[in-house]
Amino acid sequence: MSRGFVWLVGAGPGDPKLLTIRGLEALRKADVVVFDRLVDRRLLDEAPPTALRLFAGKRSGHHALPQETINDLLVSHARRGKRVVRLKGGDPFVFGRGGEEAEALADDGIPFEIVPGVTSAIAVPAMAGIPLTHRDVASSFAVVTGHEARCRGGSAVDWKRLATAVDTLVVLMGAPGLPRIVGELLAHGRPPDT
Amino acid sequence: MSRGFVWLVGAGPGDPKLLTIRGLEALRKADVVVFDRLVDRRLLDEAPPTALRLFAGKRSGHHALPQETINDLLVSHARRGKRVVRLKGGDPFVFGRGGEEAEALADDGIPFEIVPGVTSAIAVPAMAGIPLTHRDVASSFAVVTGHEARCRGGSAVDWKRLATAVDTLVVLMGAPGLPRIVGELLAHGRPPDT
Repeated sequence: MSRGFVWLVGAGPGDPKLLTIRGLEALRKADVVVFDRLVDRRLLDEAPPTALRLFAGKRSGHHALPQETINDLLVSHARRGKRVVRLKGGDPFVFGRGGEEAEALADDGIPFEIVPGVTSAIAVPAMAGIPLTHRDVASSFAVVTGHEARCRGGSAVDWKRLATAVDTLVVLMGAPGLPRIVGELLAHGRPPDT
Repeated sequence: MSRGFVWLVGAGPGDPKLLTIRGLEALRKADVVVFDRLVDRRLLDEAPPTALRLFAGKRSGHHALPQETINDLLVSHARRGKRVVRLKGGDPFVFGRGGEEAEALADDGIPFEIVPGVTSAIAVPAMAGIPLTHRDVASSFAVVTGHEARCRGGSAVDWKRLATAVDTLVVLMGAPGLPRIVGELLAHGRPPDT
């Protein structure tokens, strides 16, 4: 049997119309769709009625499926010759663990394609009227995970250096740890008016 | 006469199929399309045959139209009741000067919408197989302009702090200034193997 194919598709920041044309085309050809919690359910209607729809859901502090199980799911359906779409919120490579899925597919010799998406790191500030860069005031930005800082004992994010290194700072999944993060940034010299 | 409308649309990193569905819909309704050099010409075919297509082209070190002229173009067509699409490479707010265009429209009371795009800052590394973040090795990234560093006497980018603040560093428009940028980063403590 011919080997299947996997598309790792970024669904964008929420609005289903912010999916790319290429992502939509993949979805319309899918035999299997493995989707995350943050994906708008209206997108699933774009897959053929006969397509298998599998919820891989991830919630803060609660993974419906462990990452390895998701990887295995992609690999096993593709091995059976299926066209599989892995539909992820935002962009698959921005804190989306798309890197791990791509590795698993490559290790198994399964052909796949990355279809990048509009990352919420940029789109959400944009919709609130905040350009991440502006010729007059901001010529760099950084994106970090606030989630990671909350979960682990030692933080891999260097808040001390980040505090003053870039003009615009975007913290994803930062809401629960926000007071601590703001505290770290101020303590390390970021001006309070930014 | 009714006031027009302007969409500031990110066309994505190059492949015309990486335009969003929302961007495509705007394009199909356009009376006027003002496009940049980096936009794939095939996208222009999606606008109605009667639409006016205006090249605003920007080249490194050579602006076909000054930014103020582009702003005026958007405002004046919209004032005449036209539906105008401003089509920009990548994302309009990532070093795209979309912020200035949005300000000009807001100042004139012209209704507009930002349609974010897939930024090349993320998509290009992704296509080369490099996820900007990875659970095991990278929990932050920064995006800066290399162009700015080359053009001005004093650099607004703090290379010293950036060198060690984040895990992944993306330099846009960095090719001409790359040797200098790499030199700055190494001099300020970024490990040479990254």
